[in-house]
Amino acid sequence: MNFGIVAIIGTGLIGGSIGLGLKERGLARSIIGVGHRRASINKALKAKAIDEGTINIEKAVKQADIIILATSVDLIPDFARKIIPLMKTSAILTDVGSTKNHIVSQINREIKSKHNGDRPEFIGAHPLAGSEQRGIESARPDLFEGSVCVLTPTSLNSKKCITKLSKMWKVLGAEVSIMTPTKHDEIVALVSHLPHLVASGLVSVIDEKYWKFAASGLRDTTRVASGDPDLWLGICKQNKSRIIKALKCFSKEVKSTLNDLEKGNDNKILKRLKKSKAVRDKKRW
Amino acid sequence: MNFGIVAIIGTGLIGGSIGLGLKERGLARSIIGVGHRRASINKALKAKAIDEGTINIEKAVKQADIIILATSVDLIPDFARKIIPLMKTSAILTDVGSTKNHIVSQINREIKSKHNGDRPEFIGAHPLAGSEQRGIESARPDLFEGSVCVLTPTSLNSKKCITKLSKMWKVLGAEVSIMTPTKHDEIVALVSHLPHLVASGLVSVIDEKYWKFAASGLRDTTRVASGDPDLWLGICKQNKSRIIKALKCFSKEVKSTLNDLEKGNDNKILKRLKKSKAVRDKKRW
Repeated sequence: MNFGIVAIIGTGLIGGSIGLGLKERGLARSIIGVGHRRASINKALKAKAIDEGTINIEKAVKQADIIILATSVDLIPDFARKIIPLMKTSAILTDVGSTKNHIVSQINREIKSKHNGDRPEFIGAHPLAGSEQRGIESARPDLFEGSVCVLTPTSLNSKKCITKLSKMWKVLGAEVSIMTPTKHDEIVALVSHLPHLVASGLVSVIDEKYWKFAASGLRDTTRVASGDPDLWLGICKQNKSRIIKALKCFSKEVKSTLNDLEKGNDNKILKRLKKSKAVRDKKRW
Repeated sequence: MNFGIVAIIGTGLIGGSIGLGLKERGLARSIIGVGHRRASINKALKAKAIDEGTINIEKAVKQADIIILATSVDLIPDFARKIIPLMKTSAILTDVGSTKNHIVSQINREIKSKHNGDRPEFIGAHPLAGSEQRGIESARPDLFEGSVCVLTPTSLNSKKCITKLSKMWKVLGAEVSIMTPTKHDEIVALVSHLPHLVASGLVSVIDEKYWKFAASGLRDTTRVASGDPDLWLGICKQNKSRIIKALKCFSKEVKSTLNDLEKGNDNKILKRLKKSKAVRDKKRW
C-alpha cells in the first residue's frame, strides 16, 4: 500500500503527526510540507515529519496524489480555492478541520465550478485527537493511535476515494467513522465545542485572586480554555447554529440544577450527580 | 516537634495521607485510626498509615491530643457531637471538610454547650488537595506537598492552637492560608463546587452514544463528574447559598456567550476567549 505523493498544507501538530505517521510506516512516495514561512518548513524537515518542504503551494499541489489541508478551520476554504484549479483530476483533497458542514459545502462548490467532467474529489475529515498544545514540537507518529477519525463523504465521492482515505486513517491507527457533515457538526458541538466554551466561561467567572486555591479539579475542568482563541472563534463561526443549540441545552440544565438547589430538591440533585457519574465512569479513555 | 497522640476519624484518601505524612516524618507519638468497620482499619494498618486502629471511637478520643475528622462533610457534625464530650480540654479538634461555615458553627456551638471553663478547641481546616479517587489505596505521604490548606479559626481559638495546627499542615508540605469560614466557602463555591456541578451538567447533556467521539478535551473537562454523589450532595447542602450565587453568575456568563454567538459579536467572543486563555495560562499547577 502506498499513497503516492502526499502534500500537507500546514505542518503543525496534526499535519506534522500525519507526516511522521506515514513516514514511519513508509506509506508515501514522498511527503511535501507546505507552509507560509520558511522557518516552519525547516522545523518540520528537522523533525523528519516531511521529505521536502516548500512555500510554493502551486509546485506541491500539481504533483500530489493526496492533499491534506491541516491549517486552522478559518483558513481551509481559502487554501482550497487556491489549490483546486491546480489539482490533478485523479487527486484527493481532504482536511482535518473541526467543523465539516461549512467546509464541505464551500469546497465542493468550488470543485464543481473549476472542474468539468473528470474532477478531483474532496472528502472532509476530522481526526478526534490533539491537545491544547499546538505546533510541530508536539507532533507524534502515534498521535492518532486509538482515536476516532470522522470522514464526511457526500454523493460526489467515489467509493474508491472513500476507501483510499479510510485506509490512510486506519494505518495511522484511527478508527474511521463515516457520517454526514451535519451529523458530525452536531456531535462535535456537544463533545468538543460546548466543553470549550464552558471551560472558558468557568475561568471568566472566577476572580483571579482565587486561583491560588484551585486544585486539580479546576485545573482539568478548565484545561481546554488555554486553546488558541482565533482558532476557536473560527470554529464558533463555522458551527454557529449547532453550538447555539448545544449551549441552550446546557443552559437549561444549569437552570434546572439551580432550581433544584434553591428548592432543596435533594433527591433530584443526587439523581443528577449519580446519573452523570455512571455515564462518565463507563467511558474508557 | 511532636504532635502527641493523633486520632484520625476516617482513614480514606485524606485521613490516610495525613497518617502516612506524619508517620514518615516521625511527628506523632502514636497515630490511631478510627473507622466504622474493622476491614477499613486493617487496610489502613496494612498501608502503614496508622500505628493502631480501632472501631471504638471513645477509646481513641479520650487520649488524643489532636483529633482529625476526615470523613465526608455530611458526617462531620455528627461525629463531632459524639467526640466533644469525651475530649481532653487541652486537645484540638479539627477536620478536612470542603465546607466550613456550617461545620464550624455547629461544632463550636456543641463545644460551648458541653464544656464549661477550660474547653477543647475546634479549628476548621480544608486541605485543597485530593482527587476524584477515594480510599486508602490512593493515599500518599506527599499528597499535600505544594498544595494550600485553608484554616478557618474563630475568636474562640487561642494563638497557641492555631500555631500548632498551622505547623502540622506546614510539615505535611502545605501552604497554610487563614481566613473566615464564610470567605472560605465563597472561594470554594467558585473554584471547586461550581466546576463540579458544571462538569456533571456537561455529562448530562451529551447523549451517551456520542461519547465515542469524545477526545481528551471532554475527558478532562468532565473528570470530576466521577466524584462521589453522596459526598457532593452533602457539599451542596452545606454550602447551598454560595453555590447558588456562583451558579447564577456562571449562568449569566453562559447567556452572555449565547447572546454574542446569536448576534455574531465576533469581537466580543474573541475577547472572552483571549481573556480566559490569559488567566488560565498564568496559573502554574
